[in-house]
Amino acid sequence: MRAYRLEEFGTLDGIVLGEAPTPEPGGDEIVVKIRARSLNYRDLLILHRLYPLAGVKGVVPVSDGAGEVVAVGERVSRLAPGDRVAGVYFPRWRSGPIEPDQGRDQFGCTRNGMLAEYVVAEEQAFVKVPDHLSFEEAATLPCAAVTAWSALTGPRRVLPGESVLTIGTGGVALFALQFAKLFGARTIAITSSAEKVQLLKWQGADEVIDYRKNPGWDKLVRDMTGGAGVDHVVETGSVETLHKSLAACAWNAEVASILALTGGALDIPALRGLVTLRRLFVGSRADFEAMNRAIAHHKLRPVIGRVFPFREARAAYEYFAARRHVGKVTIADAA
Amino acid sequence: MRAYRLEEFGTLDGIVLGEAPTPEPGGDEIVVKIRARSLNYRDLLILHRLYPLAGVKGVVPVSDGAGEVVAVGERVSRLAPGDRVAGVYFPRWRSGPIEPDQGRDQFGCTRNGMLAEYVVAEEQAFVKVPDHLSFEEAATLPCAAVTAWSALTGPRRVLPGESVLTIGTGGVALFALQFAKLFGARTIAITSSAEKVQLLKWQGADEVIDYRKNPGWDKLVRDMTGGAGVDHVVETGSVETLHKSLAACAWNAEVASILALTGGALDIPALRGLVTLRRLFVGSRADFEAMNRAIAHHKLRPVIGRVFPFREARAAYEYFAARRHVGKVTIADAA
Amino acid sequence: MRAYRLEEFGTLDGIVLGEAPTPEPGGDEIVVKIRARSLNYRDLLILHRLYPLAGVKGVVPVSDGAGEVVAVGERVSRLAPGDRVAGVYFPRWRSGPIEPDQGRDQFGCTRNGMLAEYVVAEEQAFVKVPDHLSFEEAATLPCAAVTAWSALTGPRRVLPGESVLTIGTGGVALFALQFAKLFGARTIAITSSAEKVQLLKWQGADEVIDYRKNPGWDKLVRDMTGGAGVDHVVETGSVETLHKSLAACAWNAEVASILALTGGALDIPALRGLVTLRRLFVGSRADFEAMNRAIAHHKLRPVIGRVFPFREARAAYEYFAARRHVGKVTIADAA
Amino acid sequence: MRAYRLEEFGTLDGIVLGEAPTPEPGGDEIVVKIRARSLNYRDLLILHRLYPLAGVKGVVPVSDGAGEVVAVGERVSRLAPGDRVAGVYFPRWRSGPIEPDQGRDQFGCTRNGMLAEYVVAEEQAFVKVPDHLSFEEAATLPCAAVTAWSALTGPRRVLPGESVLTIGTGGVALFALQFAKLFGARTIAITSSAEKVQLLKWQGADEVIDYRKNPGWDKLVRDMTGGAGVDHVVETGSVETLHKSLAACAWNAEVASILALTGGALDIPALRGLVTLRRLFVGSRADFEAMNRAIAHHKLRPVIGRVFPFREARAAYEYFAARRHVGKVTIADAA
Repeated sequence: MRAYRLEEFGTLDGIVLGEAPTPEPGGDEIVVKIRARSLNYRDLLILHRLYPLAGVKGVVPVSDGAGEVVAVGERVSRLAPGDRVAGVYFPRWRSGPIEPDQGRDQFGCTRNGMLAEYVVAEEQAFVKVPDHLSFEEAATLPCAAVTAWSALTGPRRVLPGESVLTIGTGGVALFALQFAKLFGARTIAITSSAEKVQLLKWQGADEVIDYRKNPGWDKLVRDMTGGAGVDHVVETGSVETLHKSLAACAWNAEVASILALTGGALDIPALRGLVTLRRLFVGSRADFEAMNRAIAHHKLRPVIGRVFPFREARAAYEYFAARRHVGKVTIADAA
Repeated sequence: MRAYRLEEFGTLDGIVLGEAPTPEPGGDEIVVKIRARSLNYRDLLILHRLYPLAGVKGVVPVSDGAGEVVAVGERVSRLAPGDRVAGVYFPRWRSGPIEPDQGRDQFGCTRNGMLAEYVVAEEQAFVKVPDHLSFEEAATLPCAAVTAWSALTGPRRVLPGESVLTIGTGGVALFALQFAKLFGARTIAITSSAEKVQLLKWQGADEVIDYRKNPGWDKLVRDMTGGAGVDHVVETGSVETLHKSLAACAWNAEVASILALTGGALDIPALRGLVTLRRLFVGSRADFEAMNRAIAHHKLRPVIGRVFPFREARAAYEYFAARRHVGKVTIADAA
Repeated sequence: MRAYRLEEFGTLDGIVLGEAPTPEPGGDEIVVKIRARSLNYRDLLILHRLYPLAGVKGVVPVSDGAGEVVAVGERVSRLAPGDRVAGVYFPRWRSGPIEPDQGRDQFGCTRNGMLAEYVVAEEQAFVKVPDHLSFEEAATLPCAAVTAWSALTGPRRVLPGESVLTIGTGGVALFALQFAKLFGARTIAITSSAEKVQLLKWQGADEVIDYRKNPGWDKLVRDMTGGAGVDHVVETGSVETLHKSLAACAWNAEVASILALTGGALDIPALRGLVTLRRLFVGSRADFEAMNRAIAHHKLRPVIGRVFPFREARAAYEYFAARRHVGKVTIADAA
Repeated sequence: MRAYRLEEFGTLDGIVLGEAPTPEPGGDEIVVKIRARSLNYRDLLILHRLYPLAGVKGVVPVSDGAGEVVAVGERVSRLAPGDRVAGVYFPRWRSGPIEPDQGRDQFGCTRNGMLAEYVVAEEQAFVKVPDHLSFEEAATLPCAAVTAWSALTGPRRVLPGESVLTIGTGGVALFALQFAKLFGARTIAITSSAEKVQLLKWQGADEVIDYRKNPGWDKLVRDMTGGAGVDHVVETGSVETLHKSLAACAWNAEVASILALTGGALDIPALRGLVTLRRLFVGSRADFEAMNRAIAHHKLRPVIGRVFPFREARAAYEYFAARRHVGKVTIADAA
């Protein structure tokens, strides 16, 4: 089979396409023909050795992929050939709070990922995907969608009529917006450009603020909520947006933070009211499955910004790194 | 002002219309011109002395009413004349779990209720109602709607894509159905007649089962959910439906029970899987306010089965007692 | 190695001692030399084919055992030879709510259990046990102790100063009593005989009621709690005790039910106040590990009623079935 | 009666002792003869106009006091003359999450506080105190103890065997330590001096670290917990301790923050793992009552650092402001 490998860190040229033996399943394993992948910020961090978990040299990169089961080991019971599946970001994390050892194993980092024609792994590392989704759509789910779902399912639950603030038009932000609507929430989104306002409204934003035109957008958000502030923030921005999103919060609000913690400092007085700041890492397999039930029931469709062919995977990385996309950047079938 | 009083228990003739002094507000009190009321099963229980809390002889009956603030005491700060409000079922219960002493004070039972032109009470005993609702619609909320909201906001939260089973077309059941949709849930309703099937679908049921035609409806519900069973039941039926709704449950399901506990026995083996059976009493003022945010955001409209004029309040009781209505039975403005 | 096998159901004579090949570990498996076992009511139910899950003919019986790791497969990473471990009741249930497929695999039922010199299973099916416990003490934990822990860690948390009622002197009840003390709770125990009163006090009961002398013990419990009733019940009795334990409950209490649901009927009016009735099945591996932290920190010691030698396993079953023991009945090392 | 009043802000001389009419109770009010008070950091902030809520000029200062009910209005039902009570920090906050309007009314700030011989307020603003406490001990509870209790009763519950880190020997820290023991937790305390180590051990610390001698105490804490880190932090220190307490945290830990947010900046990379940072404000009346049950059941005794006579209230402020005390600084009976 054809497979990309991470032969060198720090440069896109380190991602090298080559041949590899097509895998066979062990006793509790399945082989999946990968039909589509999607990129995440962590894939860049791994490439540049900035990720908390060191990538293995020579590993097949990319955590997110979806495809079809083509072979199963003799002890496999949950899945069968023909099943449409996606990989789980943390293959060992089933449910409940994550334990450190469950965080230390990831596709495209410590084990071979999705940028190949086939992947082999234990059946527990995959979930079935909703029927109405294409493989490209399904490939957007493992990291960004599960992260957005987890952001909305913390201890401070999202009730219908509560307000949720999302930041920008990245993958997590768009899923958070779409999911917040499923919870019956009122959604407020901020973005940096007029043309994205319309996209956000299509995807379910009740109100959209262009933060370039409204540098005091925190006050605007408070005004929109009768002075109270928003109940939930899915913070996918930066320490700059965090200062304002905290200022836009209601008493007792929760800020679910997906920030890359690469720098910056939070002014302590910004922690106003009774806000809880909760960090999260993607989610468990149980979260993924619960999310899939919601996606399937509501026939929700992920937003795909652009699709690259398999042979142009490096171009996909480059496009993604430029951060001008909306939604998810995917890499299609190797066929 | 005109006011009905409960002069005798056990008979509809005990509900007597007469004159009473129009009330004045004390320091922390407001006077509300009541513009509409709705009836609940507890109003019948109080009339017939079957309610756990004894009604005071001579009390103005009926817990649920909505109207306009017309006068406020000098220490009132949350409300002002002109505000559109509804009474709180347990006027002393603000939030958190109910405490026994908060349960021992109720409109239309231990203190004067809503079947009068005006009511006076401390401002804390009222909440503002959503702008888009008529007074009749707002009058349906204090008991039935808050009960349905509480049924869906217990420790086992309702997630988008989870399934909720409702029983029948009474006030609580219809609110539970409408609210379950706001939570993004899949809704399954059972009813006893073909003509109600359509009403339930209009109100948001994804699937409706006519249980007269399908005495094995528990199996049908399990089949509809891929064999798993439903995640939530709002049990407003009887011990008979409870046996079947338990049988229709998924592992880890929650049955929120609003059953009048007047008799019957539950076969212990019916407690299957890991079902939690949770009893509840209406809800707190905080629950009412959270629910109102959801109703306002979604412009939800309560289902009113029939409206009676103020002077025909006894006919309203009689009609309600016959239990052939759907949704809520209301009593209009005294004007 | 020597191993008992369940050769016939319905009779103690069906439990037959014989020779079997000493197991070798597969890639993700460990071999444990079992040094002690304990019996649970489920072991009798499986013998008599009354358990919801059918036992496999010829299976090595008994779910609960503790011992020493003696060999590990090449992919094993959590455990090493020499580790002192116990088996997990549901070997596939890691954390979070149990899923049906995780409930369908159990030691001593669908797979070989602990009544042998050695057992082989995937490393994930074991947990390390606290250092201060003997193997016999550790062997009491997998079913009864984890059940008691789960009973006290439901959605309605146990706070210091809250009251917990336990029923009798069986394994689960004694662990529930000991654990409730660790939570800082006030503990009330009921028992059937004067001599057990002292045992219960030694194990941490603040108050003990002899229910034979006090048939109206529900009222006594309410009196002891200033009329309020208890906040938590760990119901390990029968439908008869359940009627009274419900009557002994405070508003908002939780009854964690471990009842074998083999018959009886619960009078619906017994569901008073706002009691939640929650069923549970043992607990997950994460529950087991959290419990072990508590046991280790507090140097808690399980109560062992009697120890039988390995060659007298049938006598242990017989003694256990007579139900005159207190605490746990264990079967010692095969040496 | 004699009463201190806050006649001028910014200086201790602004706290002036004078005569005032002894209050009479209104319909729902009680008069309490205050027998002891305790000081909190907020009392200094109010004096110096640094508190988020502006103090009323001329108000009787001090939030925390305990005493005896001496007169009750005709509508009072929860309390009676002779009852031993303490004031509630937020008199309008009963239970559930605090609402902004419930935060805007406080003893010793917007309404007369405890630095007088008598105080009058609605009965709902007081709770009964445990019998075994002196008035001085009871006067330590309303702010510091309830804060510590709330810090340990957030969404991430404290389980027996989990670890709790406390910072220093102030009022909140010592209560947090004592309460953490009641929850069965393992307790680790840090302090700045050798002589306080012993005090912390007496009050229940399993381990104490002198952070002056161990500037890398975060690593020490991780080592003490087998590398995992602590599960809970009650952060009463400063932004400096916060950086280290975050570094001392386990994955999934919760830091309950009581920091005065007057300045400083938190390095974003300090937000490691999956830590949740939760701010809190004291607690509700329901929290106070739940805490009192725990204190009463365990006969817990607050730590009083020093007692001043009523006529030396200014000296008490001065001593408290120097921040060399341990535990609580109280002001005794005016008698």
